[in-house]
Amino acid sequence: MDSNSLGRALKAVQDSKPLVVNITNYVTVNDCANALLAIGASPIMSDEPRDLVDLARICGALTINIGTLNERSIEAMFVAGESCAELGIPLVLDPVGAGASKIRTETSARLLDKLPIAIVRGNMSELRALALGSTTTCGVDVCPDDLVTDSNLMESAKFARDFATSAETVVAITGPIDIVADSTIAYAGRNGSLIQEQITGAGCMLSCMCSAYACANQDRQLATLAAVAHMGIAGQIAEKRMQGKDGNGTYRSYLLDALYHIDAGKLEEAALFEIV
Amino acid sequence: MDSNSLGRALKAVQDSKPLVVNITNYVTVNDCANALLAIGASPIMSDEPRDLVDLARICGALTINIGTLNERSIEAMFVAGESCAELGIPLVLDPVGAGASKIRTETSARLLDKLPIAIVRGNMSELRALALGSTTTCGVDVCPDDLVTDSNLMESAKFARDFATSAETVVAITGPIDIVADSTIAYAGRNGSLIQEQITGAGCMLSCMCSAYACANQDRQLATLAAVAHMGIAGQIAEKRMQGKDGNGTYRSYLLDALYHIDAGKLEEAALFEIV
Amino acid sequence: MDSNSLGRALKAVQDSKPLVVNITNYVTVNDCANALLAIGASPIMSDEPRDLVDLARICGALTINIGTLNERSIEAMFVAGESCAELGIPLVLDPVGAGASKIRTETSARLLDKLPIAIVRGNMSELRALALGSTTTCGVDVCPDDLVTDSNLMESAKFARDFATSAETVVAITGPIDIVADSTIAYAGRNGSLIQEQITGAGCMLSCMCSAYACANQDRQLATLAAVAHMGIAGQIAEKRMQGKDGNGTYRSYLLDALYHIDAGKLEEAALFEIV
Repeated sequence: MDSNSLGRALKAVQDSKPLVVNITNYVTVNDCANALLAIGASPIMSDEPRDLVDLARICGALTINIGTLNERSIEAMFVAGESCAELGIPLVLDPVGAGASKIRTETSARLLDKLPIAIVRGNMSELRALALGSTTTCGVDVCPDDLVTDSNLMESAKFARDFATSAETVVAITGPIDIVADSTIAYAGRNGSLIQEQITGAGCMLSCMCSAYACANQDRQLATLAAVAHMGIAGQIAEKRMQGKDGNGTYRSYLLDALYHIDAGKLEEAALFEIV
Repeated sequence: MDSNSLGRALKAVQDSKPLVVNITNYVTVNDCANALLAIGASPIMSDEPRDLVDLARICGALTINIGTLNERSIEAMFVAGESCAELGIPLVLDPVGAGASKIRTETSARLLDKLPIAIVRGNMSELRALALGSTTTCGVDVCPDDLVTDSNLMESAKFARDFATSAETVVAITGPIDIVADSTIAYAGRNGSLIQEQITGAGCMLSCMCSAYACANQDRQLATLAAVAHMGIAGQIAEKRMQGKDGNGTYRSYLLDALYHIDAGKLEEAALFEIV
Repeated sequence: MDSNSLGRALKAVQDSKPLVVNITNYVTVNDCANALLAIGASPIMSDEPRDLVDLARICGALTINIGTLNERSIEAMFVAGESCAELGIPLVLDPVGAGASKIRTETSARLLDKLPIAIVRGNMSELRALALGSTTTCGVDVCPDDLVTDSNLMESAKFARDFATSAETVVAITGPIDIVADSTIAYAGRNGSLIQEQITGAGCMLSCMCSAYACANQDRQLATLAAVAHMGIAGQIAEKRMQGKDGNGTYRSYLLDALYHIDAGKLEEAALFEIV
């Protein structure tokens, strides 16, 4: 994978303006819609099964985010997922808070088991919960012990490749160091800003962006790596722009602004990743 | 209709601070509330029938936005709509995504049929779906073929007047050129910014603003035209304010800021519209 | 209570990074999450009973906000409240719109009656509805007649202490003058900005902040007073930062920014309160 591929992946999104359907939580849904618009995609949100079955026929990708799941929306996730799967439409899963409650862990695991998920995007605590059935006490945030660092990078990459192999998916484990892996190759991504963790929604937005990229690009790993780099670079640009009184409120707007302005050239130039 | 009427319509909103009840989608609901506050109205949101029946007794207008409709909220739309109708309270319908799924098209059509909707606000793809039963592949966005342009303006105005006649409502079809029509007169509105399409919610906010204006102004067409001009001018002011690194994140804040600062004088001075 | 205690209360939040579970409305939920992150807490949102029972085991506090209550979420409020109560986890109630509809008034009253609510945070119209069964025509906003002013301050303080006594809770009645009372002592808080009423969510954010403070501080009244001062000072800082074209859109970001930057020293220095 070279940087030029990332630029082409972004151009493919911008040229095709993919319609992305999102079953997502009501906490960050507005940011998700604006992030998709920022990168040139067209968002629509729904959690009604009858609606989703029809939307499957016109959409380019489906994001399933369990951030505020409930009995009714879980049903919608499966109905929509199956409809999209039959049509060969890529599915992206964001297992928000897996490990924090049984219903989150089990629903994520069932979605991954029953549906041909193309990409799973989460933090390491969520991914470990999915892979190992472990629990977490850190809610929707990553637990400090689970952070990917340079000292556990090889081990984390192996975990990611193994996860990708057994779940037959591409996996993105995001945090201070990001890992994007399929069953054979894992990349470490080095973009991003610590302030992204001080707003809600950076992960959710990224998952939706993975959908847009996957719709416009057949190569799922490229799509995921490009989306991860796009968000990471935006995080850095937004951080650099912060001044005296700016805090996480303004950062949130700056992050969308940066997503909006990054073009293929910028993505190619600023993306930092290596095989691990 | 002259510009001074628009200014007076805004003053009527600011003086009466109408309580607007909104059954609306969870994507743009925060922007809707802040837009209503920006123009001097008081918002309350609900999708619970028992709640809405009581709120009908104290509110000045009701917005029904189907952006993330589900079986439960559809019931709430009819219950609340009937309660308000009995009390003579104006109803505004935003048929978000009509044409993109059967449940969206049918629910919008039923709401329009069963309730005395005062104002319908949507894009041309949504309005065509409602009038002609056509489908769309563009989700909640307008399809390029449906855009109102100077070359199809007469035809679009006729469509709008016919729609207003058969649905016994005022209709606002918004886009690069806006049309506001009752059964006899159609206006083309010339304010607005293309960047409004790069954030989610400009249409939803406008529909809520139509409610506030309709509560404070008996003349539904004046109310609608004033709301459309108010939003369009705000879009222009927000665009003009954008600088180097600003993107759709910052634009979203600027749009609310502009809604907030526009007063009667500004509305009268900047509104661009003509009979077509 | 001295100002230094407030600073220590904030440090306790920042040091312990409490996990706060919030059953809250979909209007302001994003701001609530970002406000909690701004002050150093970790938010998670849910309205699914099965989820909440598990989250009760790992969280530090629970916020119950009835802003967009419905039959399903009301059940979740009681299930989660009882689970937390058994574990001794502090509960904060925000009775949004109590008095505006029967379901809001009755649900708030039942929550207060059945659960050991540690802190109730609302405006005077909501609190009067809870205490006296009065109704309001002002939706989720305070009615002008109910405003706490210097001329009714003694009476308002007595009302607050009586409320705290009969409901066995700490009560925060917020507005231009804030009152924080337990059964024996009432404080008047003098921070805040009128522009806070021109955005949606300042009250909801504050209620969530009360949860974070209550988790990190055993003294409920201190926790509440510190949260109220923290929000009030942020409101003032945000107002001072506003320039020419800034309106309620930008103010919203500034408010989060200010929450984010206020540290123990600033809280101690700027908090204005007195016993009444």
